[in-house]
Amino acid sequence: MSSDPASEPLLDPSVPAPVCALVGIAAYTELAEFGLLAARSVDAPDLTTRQSLAVGAERALTRQQDLVGLVAAGSGVAAAASLMAPFEGVLVEFDTRTATDDWAEGLLKGVVGHGVAQDFYRTLAAGAASPYRKRLRDVLEQPEPSRNAGADAEALAVLVRLAGADDVLASRLALWGRRVVGEALNLVTDLLDSRAELASLAEDAARTLDHAADGTVRSWLVARLTAEHTRRMDRLRLAA
Amino acid sequence: MSSDPASEPLLDPSVPAPVCALVGIAAYTELAEFGLLAARSVDAPDLTTRQSLAVGAERALTRQQDLVGLVAAGSGVAAAASLMAPFEGVLVEFDTRTATDDWAEGLLKGVVGHGVAQDFYRTLAAGAASPYRKRLRDVLEQPEPSRNAGADAEALAVLVRLAGADDVLASRLALWGRRVVGEALNLVTDLLDSRAELASLAEDAARTLDHAADGTVRSWLVARLTAEHTRRMDRLRLAA
Repeated sequence: MSSDPASEPLLDPSVPAPVCALVGIAAYTELAEFGLLAARSVDAPDLTTRQSLAVGAERALTRQQDLVGLVAAGSGVAAAASLMAPFEGVLVEFDTRTATDDWAEGLLKGVVGHGVAQDFYRTLAAGAASPYRKRLRDVLEQPEPSRNAGADAEALAVLVRLAGADDVLASRLALWGRRVVGEALNLVTDLLDSRAELASLAEDAARTLDHAADGTVRSWLVARLTAEHTRRMDRLRLAA
Repeated sequence: MSSDPASEPLLDPSVPAPVCALVGIAAYTELAEFGLLAARSVDAPDLTTRQSLAVGAERALTRQQDLVGLVAAGSGVAAAASLMAPFEGVLVEFDTRTATDDWAEGLLKGVVGHGVAQDFYRTLAAGAASPYRKRLRDVLEQPEPSRNAGADAEALAVLVRLAGADDVLASRLALWGRRVVGEALNLVTDLLDSRAELASLAEDAARTLDHAADGTVRSWLVARLTAEHTRRMDRLRLAA
């Protein structure tokens, strides 16, 4: 925690507003992923899964603190809360529309929703000013699940095992994944409509990443996120 | 995670069985504390509290992994699960008897229950063989809450703030704390009855810590844990 929030600025005042916005929404998403994985740990079917998902939750929170540390004097609670505050509640509608009592569906919701969010933030990072572009990507870059290091690696491994052993579950999860990705992409476009800082990052990212002139930045972004989602479902051996 | 659980032992075979038992129950308790703090983070009343309790949960899991690392080749998921397995379900009755829908009561349950458990394990560590005695204490030693570093430090700070602003809540929490500590002490004596390794550590701890000859080891231990609980409630400014 910051020693005395009143006596020193929580955030580095030289950080551009779009970078603060990206860190804020990404940190908020990691906190949500922490909560989701921790909840699935608490009601996990066995001790190994419970431990695995707790470790995944811990990793999501570590990444969140690394993000906050990019723009704050300390990576403390007050700085994190200040960065996330403009985005408080932004996931409520997504959560309501993807609520489920099923344990595996809840876990897949995290993998799909967090996966789309990660791809979104990584793309936006390409629009950030130097030196933040590289720093953001260093934190947001998520190793392949096969290297077993991302926050979702444990969740992915659990889902691959469950779906591989049960065709009926695999079909149900494939259907559920399509519903969750639809809601996640709706949230992305809502954010671009309502948050000018994120929209400006998306414009700059499209330029940086050589977006062809046909189509809007938004349709380019949605196509990009959809393609990443399809690859993710392939890794899960589920139909996208 | 361990690279190949089949090819190498998960646990160091030279570790005495009572030390493995103490690490197993302590690791299991930290995993439970992780889950409790994470759950109270998810439904916290504001973003700062939500972040604080997530950080506390993360710290409980870090301590758990440090404990596992004392006796395992790696601090991986498989080693943790293997150490905790003999204690799976041991908290179910305690959890049932201290179930609450009230957010502040749920948080105090964690502080009181986890506090008694920590004091119990620290005391048992005094009965462990060298060099484990010192190593266990180094991990289990919890700094004073004023130094804001223990897993429960954030929960303590939140409860002090809430109870300080609301006398009715403070009275209710004081009553609740007495109920939780009663159940926690029942669990401690059940564990001493049912787990020979823990009972033998308690015997050795009593000798090491100069337990006077009158009274049983169990009554000495309960008196010791009760005194620590009273100090803890004082720090919370609640009547024990």
